[in-house]
Amino acid sequence: MRRGGKVYLIGAGPGDPELITIKGARILSMADAVVYDRLVDRRLLELARRDALLIYAGKAPGSHSMTQDEINQALLELAWRYELVVRLKGGDPLTFGRGEEECLYLLSHGVECEVIPGITSYQGASAQYLIPLAGRGFSSNFTVATGTRAGGSLLGSREINRILSSSDTVVFLMASRIFPEIIQAAIKVRGPSTPIAVVERATTLSSTIRLASAYDPEWKNYAVSSPAVIYVGGGPSWALKNRVVRYYS
Amino acid sequence: MRRGGKVYLIGAGPGDPELITIKGARILSMADAVVYDRLVDRRLLELARRDALLIYAGKAPGSHSMTQDEINQALLELAWRYELVVRLKGGDPLTFGRGEEECLYLLSHGVECEVIPGITSYQGASAQYLIPLAGRGFSSNFTVATGTRAGGSLLGSREINRILSSSDTVVFLMASRIFPEIIQAAIKVRGPSTPIAVVERATTLSSTIRLASAYDPEWKNYAVSSPAVIYVGGGPSWALKNRVVRYYS
Repeated sequence: MRRGGKVYLIGAGPGDPELITIKGARILSMADAVVYDRLVDRRLLELARRDALLIYAGKAPGSHSMTQDEINQALLELAWRYELVVRLKGGDPLTFGRGEEECLYLLSHGVECEVIPGITSYQGASAQYLIPLAGRGFSSNFTVATGTRAGGSLLGSREINRILSSSDTVVFLMASRIFPEIIQAAIKVRGPSTPIAVVERATTLSSTIRLASAYDPEWKNYAVSSPAVIYVGGGPSWALKNRVVRYYS
Repeated sequence: MRRGGKVYLIGAGPGDPELITIKGARILSMADAVVYDRLVDRRLLELARRDALLIYAGKAPGSHSMTQDEINQALLELAWRYELVVRLKGGDPLTFGRGEEECLYLLSHGVECEVIPGITSYQGASAQYLIPLAGRGFSSNFTVATGTRAGGSLLGSREINRILSSSDTVVFLMASRIFPEIIQAAIKVRGPSTPIAVVERATTLSSTIRLASAYDPEWKNYAVSSPAVIYVGGGPSWALKNRVVRYYS
């Protein structure tokens, strides 16, 4: 039995507010209520109706404004009350994060839920700095991993080694805390000249990239600040000198 | 030295024309010339200016309308002649495909090139059918692979086994021809109850999904028609009965 309104989980994209999809923007502009995350650019909220209810769900690392249970419950209650509810999430709702969990909770209570995909941070960083994920002649697969196990604890060296052995290009997200271990593993598993790129705050006005071989001594003291995308491996363009640093939006 | 106009490589998204980004659509609408691929929905071309030059680059499997060299050369000559040239590609320009190659060719001839990311087919299929790529509690990484090696030949059983051993969720693209080998490898490496999903023509009006365990006998005669996304593994929602098949756009 269908009950109440419909909830759309919409991917807000990697940072630049123009990287939301047309579909996501259109549905956002019609919403009665919007529940948004910390990494969502506030300019996207200007797309919402003036009378739309805007609710901040927070989720800074270590200091959750709302717990996941509270978010699930809020979405359910909003769906009972309104016709069209938007849950606006950074990146893509089903690439990490807890989009599936939110959708399943709503569906299990008879509330319709639909997902509108979003550009991920690693795709945004990849486009901004021309770091290919895979391409003819150098890589036929890539792996995207978080710094934590499915259970929540940090990855150990053995798991990092295994991930780095498995694919041509590897992208780590939410892995700032294990960056020294990633560098060590890259040197061990792939060799010291393996290219490493760290992109912070991809596709925003303050985005930065550092690109160097795994053995570069400066990586030792490099404090990666989140949100960051850590790339290991890569294609021909990694050798480009004087790469253009583009500022989005 | 900068010469001529600028070329934007724009990801058109997985199928549904509304899944292009706002940025991609805005730049497309200003273009003097557009070079587009086979999998790009023709309705996106209606966003272009009426007087824009539209060039079909083709690339059906096995019958290329233009060779890659011809595409590179065409983009270069268009950039010499026009201010704003768009190369519109299905999915995301730097996730497989040859976007990097095209950009490097232009940059090496002094022509500016910028990439606007796009939603990939596997993200589109994932959103449409609620197939999560990774999520808390069941998967902390995923691998995306093509059916061919970096050199172009088809993957062998050993490589398929290795890819399936490495990540929690594995997505195969452009792998219709090795689907029987993927099923065999999934049974062997992950066990017969491993969930398999095949999504054809994701996010289009004719999209289909088939979801069953690896040992399901019907997979034996299942002819996967491209473009298709093949998923191995997955999260809690895979057990959902009566899943809603949503038609996009």
